[in-house]
Amino acid sequence: MARRKKVYEGKAKILYEGPEPGTLIQYFKDDSAPSPATPAPAAVEGKGVLNNRLSEFFMTGLNAIGVPTHFIRRLNMREQLVRMAEIIPLEVVVRNFAAGELSARLGIPEGTPLPRPIVEYYYKDERLGTPMVSEEHIFAFNWASQQDLDDIVALSLRVNDFLSGVMMGVGIRLADFRIEVGRIWDGDYMRLIIADEISPDSCRLWDLRGAAESMERDGVTRDPGPLADVYTELARRLGVLPSNVTHPTKPTLIN
Amino acid sequence: MARRKKVYEGKAKILYEGPEPGTLIQYFKDDSAPSPATPAPAAVEGKGVLNNRLSEFFMTGLNAIGVPTHFIRRLNMREQLVRMAEIIPLEVVVRNFAAGELSARLGIPEGTPLPRPIVEYYYKDERLGTPMVSEEHIFAFNWASQQDLDDIVALSLRVNDFLSGVMMGVGIRLADFRIEVGRIWDGDYMRLIIADEISPDSCRLWDLRGAAESMERDGVTRDPGPLADVYTELARRLGVLPSNVTHPTKPTLIN
Repeated sequence: MARRKKVYEGKAKILYEGPEPGTLIQYFKDDSAPSPATPAPAAVEGKGVLNNRLSEFFMTGLNAIGVPTHFIRRLNMREQLVRMAEIIPLEVVVRNFAAGELSARLGIPEGTPLPRPIVEYYYKDERLGTPMVSEEHIFAFNWASQQDLDDIVALSLRVNDFLSGVMMGVGIRLADFRIEVGRIWDGDYMRLIIADEISPDSCRLWDLRGAAESMERDGVTRDPGPLADVYTELARRLGVLPSNVTHPTKPTLIN
Repeated sequence: MARRKKVYEGKAKILYEGPEPGTLIQYFKDDSAPSPATPAPAAVEGKGVLNNRLSEFFMTGLNAIGVPTHFIRRLNMREQLVRMAEIIPLEVVVRNFAAGELSARLGIPEGTPLPRPIVEYYYKDERLGTPMVSEEHIFAFNWASQQDLDDIVALSLRVNDFLSGVMMGVGIRLADFRIEVGRIWDGDYMRLIIADEISPDSCRLWDLRGAAESMERDGVTRDPGPLADVYTELARRLGVLPSNVTHPTKPTLIN
């Protein structure tokens, strides 16, 4: 392990060479990268451990319903084995409710339901602040083809249906999320897969259960708001909290 | 209420005229109708109350992600207000894992994952035993057009993605489910909506959590099996159990 080669290091994750050609090891750190879609919180102790589990949960579910992802298997507390893909340099954002940059750009109050899911693209360049781009930019600079984008929209909307279902099942509203998409080749045949991670760092989650409970308790309607202690609470509701995490706000895991 | 007109009575549900033209009141009984996809259990006391809640939960979720359904709102413990639709005389079955009639017909062991979701059609005629039919039958007898069927497949697969997500979120595998589809008209414009109900009577559900727990406890791999006391357990996991239902196996509600 000491000698393995680091391929990439970002704010939230490190990628190492994998044991087989075409694989990588994805290591989850406790830091988070900021994003226009989902402003990231400061480092949270143990967050990487939970995101490793949560991303495993979502990616496994997507693989099971036939939405291909890079996920192969979880290796340990902070690492998972993934397929190496050629990452398309876009953050693909799907929005169900107005929030964040969409609210700011168009003056739509946070929490407003959108007429239909809206798919947006942001160019993956942190020095530029991950700027929003249109299809014109994407085709002109050859980041993706029309066929790629058609497939990306179809995949993104399937992820949205599935992920909305998972979240609704545990009393959470999926306001928006971002994914990254990569290309892999089976011989000459190219296909697109979901890469990166799916976790509270890439999803904006609002607590429906808390809002309903406060309605019952106080008789006052409250809009669903951010989920407190989102990593632990989401892992707990989905039943993927590692059994040695007991403290609700500060996981004490060390790997 | 005493004078309202009964429009239809089946084994599991009664339909009454609704308060407005184009609406119906759907009443949930404790009996269940048998089906080739999901063999129904005997009458379970309080089952109708829970299915009313569960169908509300799933239909509301589908409406929210843009899959249109007949559901308008729940009226009371056993009744909900729905849009009147012209029901297409097919049970549309989506299968993710082999079970029931598919296993019997093709000799595939129960629990085998299918290469992709398979959509099947059964002709809604109980006297005939709700026989499986092919697209040829559907077009020849004019039960639905090619365009209808394209839309039905698209809707069914979206329901499958969403419902698989909801179930996975609460530790349940959606092996298969059936839906009914109806036509409604907005002026001259016809569209298809999900009708009937979505509940344990129309879904085959296997307990992943129970299988995982017995694996941890006994170290023996066990395939996910049917969910014990499926109505109460599903309502409990989804947080829609009415607060006066306390007994885990025998809800004591009377409406």
